[in-house]
This record gives sequence, structure tokens and C-alpha cells, in this order.
Amino acid sequence: MVDNYEDLVARSPETFRGEYAIDVRIHHEVTGIDAVNQRVSIKTDEGRELSEPYDHLLIATGARPICPKVPNADAEGIFGLSTLASGLRVQEFIERNKPRRAVVVGGGYIGLEMAEALVRRGLDVSLVQRGQEVMGTLDSDMGQLVSKALRDIGVTLYLSEEFTAFETKDGKVSEVTTDQRSLPADIVILGIGVTPNSELAAGAGIELAAKNAIKVDDQMRTSTTNIWAAGDCAASVHRLTGQPIYIALGTVANKQGLVAGTNLAGGDLRFPGVMGTAVSKICQVEVARTGLQEKELQEIGSEYATAIIKTKTRAGYYPGSGSISVKLLGEVASGRLLGAQIVGMEGAAKRVDVIATALTAGMTAQDLIDLDLSYAPPFSPVWDPVQIAARQLIKQL
Amino acid sequence: MVDNYEDLVARSPETFRGEYAIDVRIHHEVTGIDAVNQRVSIKTDEGRELSEPYDHLLIATGARPICPKVPNADAEGIFGLSTLASGLRVQEFIERNKPRRAVVVGGGYIGLEMAEALVRRGLDVSLVQRGQEVMGTLDSDMGQLVSKALRDIGVTLYLSEEFTAFETKDGKVSEVTTDQRSLPADIVILGIGVTPNSELAAGAGIELAAKNAIKVDDQMRTSTTNIWAAGDCAASVHRLTGQPIYIALGTVANKQGLVAGTNLAGGDLRFPGVMGTAVSKICQVEVARTGLQEKELQEIGSEYATAIIKTKTRAGYYPGSGSISVKLLGEVASGRLLGAQIVGMEGAAKRVDVIATALTAGMTAQDLIDLDLSYAPPFSPVWDPVQIAARQLIKQL
Repeated sequence: MVDNYEDLVARSPETFRGEYAIDVRIHHEVTGIDAVNQRVSIKTDEGRELSEPYDHLLIATGARPICPKVPNADAEGIFGLSTLASGLRVQEFIERNKPRRAVVVGGGYIGLEMAEALVRRGLDVSLVQRGQEVMGTLDSDMGQLVSKALRDIGVTLYLSEEFTAFETKDGKVSEVTTDQRSLPADIVILGIGVTPNSELAAGAGIELAAKNAIKVDDQMRTSTTNIWAAGDCAASVHRLTGQPIYIALGTVANKQGLVAGTNLAGGDLRFPGVMGTAVSKICQVEVARTGLQEKELQEIGSEYATAIIKTKTRAGYYPGSGSISVKLLGEVASGRLLGAQIVGMEGAAKRVDVIATALTAGMTAQDLIDLDLSYAPPFSPVWDPVQIAARQLIKQL
Repeated sequence: MVDNYEDLVARSPETFRGEYAIDVRIHHEVTGIDAVNQRVSIKTDEGRELSEPYDHLLIATGARPICPKVPNADAEGIFGLSTLASGLRVQEFIERNKPRRAVVVGGGYIGLEMAEALVRRGLDVSLVQRGQEVMGTLDSDMGQLVSKALRDIGVTLYLSEEFTAFETKDGKVSEVTTDQRSLPADIVILGIGVTPNSELAAGAGIELAAKNAIKVDDQMRTSTTNIWAAGDCAASVHRLTGQPIYIALGTVANKQGLVAGTNLAGGDLRFPGVMGTAVSKICQVEVARTGLQEKELQEIGSEYATAIIKTKTRAGYYPGSGSISVKLLGEVASGRLLGAQIVGMEGAAKRVDVIATALTAGMTAQDLIDLDLSYAPPFSPVWDPVQIAARQLIKQL
């Protein structure tokens, strides 16, 4: 646990002003962009209205949690998570109201991390998930391992169940209704994804891409001259498919920011896109994925094969050796790798980076087997788990 | 600690006989190969002499610790480490003789692992190393981090010092002499490398390669028809230089064995060679390397640049976040990566696999920066340490 939430802030407004000499204005909201005259209109928290000129404008408005369009969605006790402030609001609500029963709607990264945090705080936690298993960015045969990890810590899962409504009492949330049941709730966490804050851009006539994210080129230029976008408000390109994709992750945001900042200051960097890599930790269970999952491969009509293996994170006899399951996906005709999913104990997840690298290089399953990956008993079986999976995949190709 | 040494045995003779129906003969030494008539001569432990025919012969005679050619090298209390039995002999010697002062000659993997083991058993441990720092497979700027880790656990290091002789008393080792001093010793561990057991092969006229290892092609065929070799007795090819190299590591041996076994049974597998990847753990410090180090690059006349960065294994605020140092080497003209060395706390070492994969794919420092590597606070800073190193390396190219 991190003791002080301020430790989570990488750079304060003072850092920007002091170290970078950037004129940071907080409590200033940009309400409109005049792309022709290169000006933005601003409204301050105290109600003042300003207009400022720009040579280059970077839109980095981020994303917000998706809130279902149902009655009572704004009731007290219902929280979406995005900013540090939103996390603090949940903490404050829990301390003030001492909720007993929590319902998490959605089984993605945010939903699972919040479910774990609430269980640790002693709440009775239920999680409603539309998909067959939690963590829909994994195939269900791997997602079930994560579902199990959640049940193991005491989360009650309602899978393949559709959230339908909130019930309230005295303006506070009291129940979450699904297509199959009604769950009493003192607090509700929304974990059904985020949507880009792209309204400002759209209002200025800037083109949007997948899921309303701002369309950018590989230099992070929008469709409008001298306007750039980066981070959770901007779209990406998937490096395997070449198709636009919206992935709101810190690593992507950070890289896009570097590229945009460098380019608008006259440099030349490119953001080549994403591989769909993501990693998470639910209690002791590490979860990782990269590339394309079965659903995505079916959508693009790929003829693929899969292999799942279960082995150990370290030499079998080595203390602390835990289980690791690796799923690999490969193209039948070429043997080319298409994706990977990993669920396992300590040391499991970061192995996905080898596959992300192999995918970027267009490697086949045989290429993966041929890699000289590191081995010593504290770190790995003699054959790294990803290579054991590749040996299994080759038999299916 | 592993409680029972038998847990370290992956497959017993009984497993081979039972599960694989292989006629395993222990206590049988092959003393000669008649490659013309395809027969081997055998001497049993009881002194019987046999001759057996073969269709295919696999030489998997392994390697043995190098023993310095000095007087008293066979004195009691001096141990090389290779087989499980040799480890048990050290353990038995310690239990029987209760040595107080240990001297380890050589600062490679075996020397360091034994130094740690002896410190843990309460011995006063000195280590003599010819090189400027321990772990000569790292450049000295990274090796010094490992030297520090050893000093931190109480090992006394004598660096840049040449071992010269053993002194004995009543047939037991009593002192280790270097070109600078004399060190009292109740037990001595030799960690100055291994040499392939290739005499049997050489006696049959089979060609040897680097460091007297048996020369093999990528199918593990020796120069003589129907004779194959694999493991610590066989040479490899370095995938970056294309040059023969001798690397006695379990992962290489295991892969060569699979390739040799598959091919001599009529299959078709290739062993593409090694990338020089290795990993080790000294107490809590993880050490990894891949590709070529400065010394190797100078030998081949490469014009290279280097960068070393120090960062954290996890998000800075995340509990358990430790330091990690990454050194990257790249070719000045092309930006192509040439090697990496990593020293750090938990989670540091296995990151070398990303570089091993990138090296195999011929990636540049920019390619490494562009990779979509996984990020979440329990696993990594937003930019993975290997990418932070690549950003630094680009400035040097």
C-alpha cells in the first residue's frame, strides 16, 4: 500500500512552473477552439472568461469513465474512476459512510483493481460482468483463471449478466439490477470502460477516429493545422492490423505525449502504434496480454491456431516457484505469432514483453523457440514458459 | 533453500528405462569410438570391457571444471563444481571438517554462487578474481555493481589479482597464493570456468572448434558420419557474429539435446545458435546479459556506443520497487543493438529477454523505444527500463 496519495503525483503544477518554465494554469477550462484565428476560449473556476492565442495547440484532455445512460446514474455512492481525485472521493465516501456491500459493474482492469481494494477494506464485494469471464481483453479460457483468482479472494462474480439499472433510497444508491437479479449495494463502482474527452476537438471540427478518439497521424497531428493530440483522448493504430484502435493506457499516453511534444517543438519523432500490450495484478495473480485475442482475429477473418500450456515460473524445485499459464495465438499458414495471454504468479506477466517484441518483429512460433532467452533456476524453467507454449503451438499449426 | 538434493534430479535412470524405454547403463564408461565400424568400447566400474555397435552415436559428455596446472591442485579441500555429486562432496567436506576460511578462485557464475552459499553457511569467504571486477561476462562498469553486492554480504574481494599456487599441510589445502598475497584457506572452490569433455571425440578424429568444444553443424552433426554431439561438450555459433563460441549453459545444452535427438531419430530441427544470454542471482541482486560486451565488440572491430541508466524496477511509489541498472550497446552507424547488461533487484534480470529478442530481430535502439512493452505500477515504470536505456543510447549514437 502507498501511504500518501501525493506520492502518486509525478509532477506538480509547481514542478512544471519551476523546472520546465511552463505557464501552468489550473482551474482554467478551455471551452472552445477557434482553429482559424488560432485562439482558445477559457473559463476560470471563478467565472472569468478569457481568450488566449496559440501557435501550436496540444489537446490532452484525457478520458472519463463511461457512465451508463440509465436513471439514477448520478446518485450518491456511484463512482467512476479516472483521476486521482476520483479515487480520493471513493476513499472519503467509504470512510464517511462505512458501506458494507459493494457492487462493481464491469470486469476490466479498473473493475478488478477496485474489487480487490474493496475486499481488502473488508467490504462484501459483488462484480457484474457482461462477458463470460472477467477481463474481456483475454479469451475466456484464460479469463476464467482471473475469475478464479477473484473468487479466491472472496469476490462474488455474476458473469454473462447484463447490468440494467440502479435503484436508490433517499438519493443514495441502494441496489444494482441486472437482467437476472437485484443486488443490494451501499457503494457502486463503474468499471465499464472510458470514453475520450474529445468534445472540445469535435466542436472545432477536428476529425475523430475509433470510439470517438481524436484521429492523429504518427506524429500526433490532428486533422487541423497546428493542433495536436496525445494521451487518452487520442486514437492509436494497431501495429499488427494497421487499423485504428483506442487504447487508454498510461504507457501509450506517455509515449504519445513525448512524440507530440517533441514534434510541436520542431523535432521529429513518430509513434508507430500499439501492440495491444497490457498487464495487471489482481492480488498475487499477474495477468498480461499482447497482440490480438480470438475475438479480434475472428473479426479480421484470420485463420489462427492456439495453444495453452501450464508450467512453472521458476525451476520446479526452486522456492517460490508458482504456476504460469501461457496462451499463444499464431497464423496457420505462416506460423507467424498473433498474440499471447499470460496468467500466473510472480514473474509471470512481464514475459509478455518478449512476445510483444516478437510480434513487432513478425516472428513465427519457431523463431520464438529459437530465441536465446535467459535461464537460471530462480527465474525460469530451462525452457522459458513462452517457448514451451510455442512448442505446443507449432503442433497446432 | 531446496531441502532434498534428489529434488534437483529431473529424470532418474529409472525414468529413462521406464517412461522412455531407453537402455540406460550407469557405471559404464565409453573409452573409445571406432567410427569406421561404428562401435564403442566400454569399461564398466567393475573392470569389464565391452564393445557395442551403434547406428547413430550422440556424444553428450558434458564439461568439467578447469583445474589450474599447479602443484597440489589435487589436495584435499579443493573443489571444482559441475555435477550434483561434486556439490554433495563440498557439502560433506564442510559438515565433516567445519572449515572456517574459504577462498573462491574465480568470479564467474559458479564462483559467485558458491561464495554466497559459503557465506550463508557462516564461512569467512575471500574471492580472487583476475579481472577488474567479478562477473567478467559483464563490462567492468556493470560488474562493479555485482562486486558491491558481494561485498555487501561480507565476501572479501581480491580483484585484478592472479591466482598462482596452492599451499598444503598434511595433504590438505592450507593457503591460496596470488601474485599479491597469501590467503589462508580451509576450503577452496575453483570457479575459473569449464572445459568440454571432448577427448573421446578428438580420439576418434572428430573435429573440435572453439575452446576444444566439439564442432557441430546446426543439426548437431559432428564432422564424422552418424556421430552427433550436444550439450556442454559441443560448440555453438553466436547469432550476432556468426562465429563459433563455447557456452556451457543448461539452456543451450537442453536445446541442443532436443535438436540432436530429434534429428538422429529422423526429424528435422535446427539449432540456430546462441545470443550470449545468461542470468544469475547473487543474494537479492539479479544479473543478466545478452549479446556482445565491450571486449567482444573491440575484438571484432565494431564501432559501438554505450549507455547506462539507473531507474526503478516498478513505479517509484510502488512497494517493493528496487533499483535497476541497464547498460545498452549499439552500433554507431546503424543504431542496431549489440548487447545489454542488467544488474538490479527483483524483476530486473528477465528484462534481458526483450533485448535478446530484439537482437535476434536486428532491431535498432529506436525500434526498442517503439515497442509496446507492458506497464502497470507493480511491474515497471511507465517507460520500461530497457526503453529508458534505449533513449539514452540514441543520444550517444
